[in-house]
Amino acid sequence: VIPYGGGTSVVGHITPSKSDAPVLTLSLEKMTRLLDLDETSRLATFQAGVAGPQLEEQLKARGYTLGHFPQSFEYSTLGGWIVTRSSGQQSYRYGKIESLFAGGIMETPRGRLEMKPVPASAAGPDVREMALGSEGRLGVVTQAQVRVRRAPEAESFFGVFFHSWEQGSDAVREIVQNEIPVSMLRLSNPLETETTLILSGKSWLGMADRGLRMIGYGDTRCLLMFGVTGSARLFKRTRREAAALCRKFGGLFVGTIVGHTWEKNRFLAPYLRNTLWERGVAIDTLETALPWSQVREASVAIPKSIVDAAAKHNERVLAFSHLSHVYRDGASVYTTYLFRRTGDPDELLARWGTMKHDASLTIQRFGGTITHQHGVGMDHAPYLPAEKGALGMDAIRAVCKSFDPDGMMNPGKLF
Amino acid sequence: VIPYGGGTSVVGHITPSKSDAPVLTLSLEKMTRLLDLDETSRLATFQAGVAGPQLEEQLKARGYTLGHFPQSFEYSTLGGWIVTRSSGQQSYRYGKIESLFAGGIMETPRGRLEMKPVPASAAGPDVREMALGSEGRLGVVTQAQVRVRRAPEAESFFGVFFHSWEQGSDAVREIVQNEIPVSMLRLSNPLETETTLILSGKSWLGMADRGLRMIGYGDTRCLLMFGVTGSARLFKRTRREAAALCRKFGGLFVGTIVGHTWEKNRFLAPYLRNTLWERGVAIDTLETALPWSQVREASVAIPKSIVDAAAKHNERVLAFSHLSHVYRDGASVYTTYLFRRTGDPDELLARWGTMKHDASLTIQRFGGTITHQHGVGMDHAPYLPAEKGALGMDAIRAVCKSFDPDGMMNPGKLF
Repeated sequence: VIPYGGGTSVVGHITPSKSDAPVLTLSLEKMTRLLDLDETSRLATFQAGVAGPQLEEQLKARGYTLGHFPQSFEYSTLGGWIVTRSSGQQSYRYGKIESLFAGGIMETPRGRLEMKPVPASAAGPDVREMALGSEGRLGVVTQAQVRVRRAPEAESFFGVFFHSWEQGSDAVREIVQNEIPVSMLRLSNPLETETTLILSGKSWLGMADRGLRMIGYGDTRCLLMFGVTGSARLFKRTRREAAALCRKFGGLFVGTIVGHTWEKNRFLAPYLRNTLWERGVAIDTLETALPWSQVREASVAIPKSIVDAAAKHNERVLAFSHLSHVYRDGASVYTTYLFRRTGDPDELLARWGTMKHDASLTIQRFGGTITHQHGVGMDHAPYLPAEKGALGMDAIRAVCKSFDPDGMMNPGKLF
Repeated sequence: VIPYGGGTSVVGHITPSKSDAPVLTLSLEKMTRLLDLDETSRLATFQAGVAGPQLEEQLKARGYTLGHFPQSFEYSTLGGWIVTRSSGQQSYRYGKIESLFAGGIMETPRGRLEMKPVPASAAGPDVREMALGSEGRLGVVTQAQVRVRRAPEAESFFGVFFHSWEQGSDAVREIVQNEIPVSMLRLSNPLETETTLILSGKSWLGMADRGLRMIGYGDTRCLLMFGVTGSARLFKRTRREAAALCRKFGGLFVGTIVGHTWEKNRFLAPYLRNTLWERGVAIDTLETALPWSQVREASVAIPKSIVDAAAKHNERVLAFSHLSHVYRDGASVYTTYLFRRTGDPDELLARWGTMKHDASLTIQRFGGTITHQHGVGMDHAPYLPAEKGALGMDAIRAVCKSFDPDGMMNPGKLF
C-alpha cells in the first residue's frame, strides 16, 4: 500500500519497488477539509490530503496561516509534509513541520493510532516523532492538528549583495545567532547568484551588473534574500536590524527589487525542470544540513564533488548552492545541478548516479544529514545506515514492524 | 542497571522495582567535563553526568550559557534532563531540553549508539527522539552535544498583579501568541499568590496587601512573574511591550520587587519539602500541559480534584496551581498540594495515592499529558497507556527491546 498525497516527491517515495506483490496506491486527494479551528489554542484540524493552497485558503478565511511553504506547496499535502519531515521556505519563522504538527490520527495495519495534541510533554519517547518521517511505512496519516498563527500584517523579501561567500555566510550566521526575528534567510553562492540574475531576465540587469561591479561586487558576489514577516511594528524594526547587521559584513542592501521577483516565482522552479528537459538539459537538486563549522567548506565541496563526478563521464555540469534554511547551530546547504541529457536513458541514469553518489559521500564526510527536507524514499535509503548507525536502523525497523507486522506499507522506502 | 544522575527524580525513576534480580546503580557523578566547545556552531559537548551549576560554570568561563534551569538545577544532570525530557524555568526562551539536545552518545546493552549533531533533518524517524524520555530503558547517555547561546547582557524578573485568574491567563496567552520575546511567564492562581506573598515574609507585606486591596486587587488577585533576558536593546523593548500588554488586561506592573525574591529562591522550593515534613506537613507537586482551550477550566479542576480526594479521607489539603511553561497552543499547569502527615505511613501513602490518582484522571479527562516535565518513572507508568494508546505503547516497547533485548535497563520505568 503506497499512500499518495500530492505526488511531488523527488526521492522516490511513491514509486513501487520491484516486487511480484500487488501494489495499491491510496490517494488522499478528497480529504481536504478543515474540520475544526480552535482559535483559543490556535490549533487547526485538517484532513491530511489537503494541499498547500487549499489549506492556506481555508485558514485565511478565518484570519490565520500555517506558514508552511515548501517549493512543492501548490501540490504537496499536509500528510505528505508530516511523513517526510518537510520544511517550508519560511521555516525560520514558522518552524519545520515537526514543530507545527501537534497531533493527529494515523490508520495503521494494526488499527488506529491517535496522537493527542499537547503543547509539550515529558511522557516518555514521543510517538508523534515516530510518525514524522515515517514515509508511509507505519500507516496513513489521515488527520492532523497543526499550530497556526494569525495572518501577518506585513511581509516583504529584501535583497542584499555581499562581496564574497565568506562574508555572506558570516552575516547570515550572525543574524541567526543574534536571534533577529526575520522570516527567511537564503544565501546564494556566486554561481547561483549569477544564474539567478540571468534567469530573472530583467531589462535593467546589464546596467545593474556594471554598477555593482564598479562598487566592488564582482565575480565573487553573493545574493542574500531575507524575509520579514509579522506585525507592522516588528516589521520595520527587524528589517532595520537585519540590514544593519548585513552592512557590518560589507552587505549592500538593495531593497525589494530582487525579492519581489523571487516571491513571484517562489513555487515555479519545479516547472523549470520540464522546460529544461525539453531543451535537452536535466536538472536535479540535493540538500543536507550541518553544523556551522562545516557549512563553509561543505558548501564548496558538495558542488565540486558533482563537477568532479561528471568529469569521470567526460561531462560538464553546472552546480551551485545556497543556504536555504538556517539555525543557530547550522544551516542546510541546497545544491542544484544541471547536466546534458543524453539520448541513452541508461547512460544518463548512470551519469546521474555517479554525481548523486559522490555528492552523498561528500555530505557524509562533513557529518551532514543525507536530507534536510526531501526525505529518504528510495534514493537516500542506501545512505541512511551510515547516519543512523546499525542500532538506530534496528530501532526504526522495530517501530515499523510494531505498527505493520507484515511489511505491507510502502515497502522499500527508508530501508 | 539503573543509571544515576543527580538523584532528583520525583516520580520514581531511580527506585529499584520489586524483583529478585540483582540491581546495579550506575553513577555518572564523575563524568562532568566540557569536552569541546564549537563556538562557530554554538555546540558544546559535555559528559552527561555534569550537574547544572558545573555545566553553567564551564560555559560561563567561555561567555556562553545553556539556559536550562529546572528547579532541580543544583543537582540534576544533563543526562538526566535528556532521558526525562526536562524543562527549565526559562524554557520559553531557551527551549525544552528536546530542542537543546543536538546529539550525543548512548551506551546500550547492544553497543554504542552515536547520534550526530545536525541542526535539522528529514532522514526518517528521529533516533534522538527515542533517546529523549527513554528514562534509562535503552541505555546510558554518556555524552551530549547541546546548543548554547552567548551569555545574556541583561536579565530581570518582573511582577504583575491581575484582578483575576481569567484576566491573568488571557494576558499570558496574548503575550505568547503575539510572540513577545520574554524569557519566562509564570502565573500563580489566587491561592498560590497568597501563599507566595505570605511565605516571602517581607516586612512591608501588610502595607502592600492593604494597598493592593484598596485599588481592587483583592482575594481573586493573581501574580504573574515574567522574565526578560537578552541584549540590552531587546531587554528594554520587551519589558515595555509585555508590561503594556498586561495593562490591557488590568495588570498592575510592580517592577522587580517580587521578581528579585523569586530569583533568589528559584531553586529552593525542593528544600521546603524537608522542612515542612519535619513540621508534620507533606508536600507534593504534579503537572500537565494542555491546549489553551482547556487550561482555564483544568487549572481549577485539578486542584479541586485533590481537595475532593482528600475529603474522602476526611482530610483537608491546601492545593494551588500556576501556569509554569507556556506555548502558543497551550500551557503547563503545575499544582502544589500540602497535607497533614499522619503517624501511620501506610495510611499517608494511601491518602496520597487517592489524591494523585484522582488528579491524574482529571488531567486525562481534559486531554492533558500525564507529565510536562517530571517524566514517567513508576508513578506515572499506569497512566501512560491511556495517553499513548495501545499501538503507541507497543512501539515504545519495541524500541526498548531493540536496544535492550533482555530488559536489563531500568526495568519497571515507563511501563
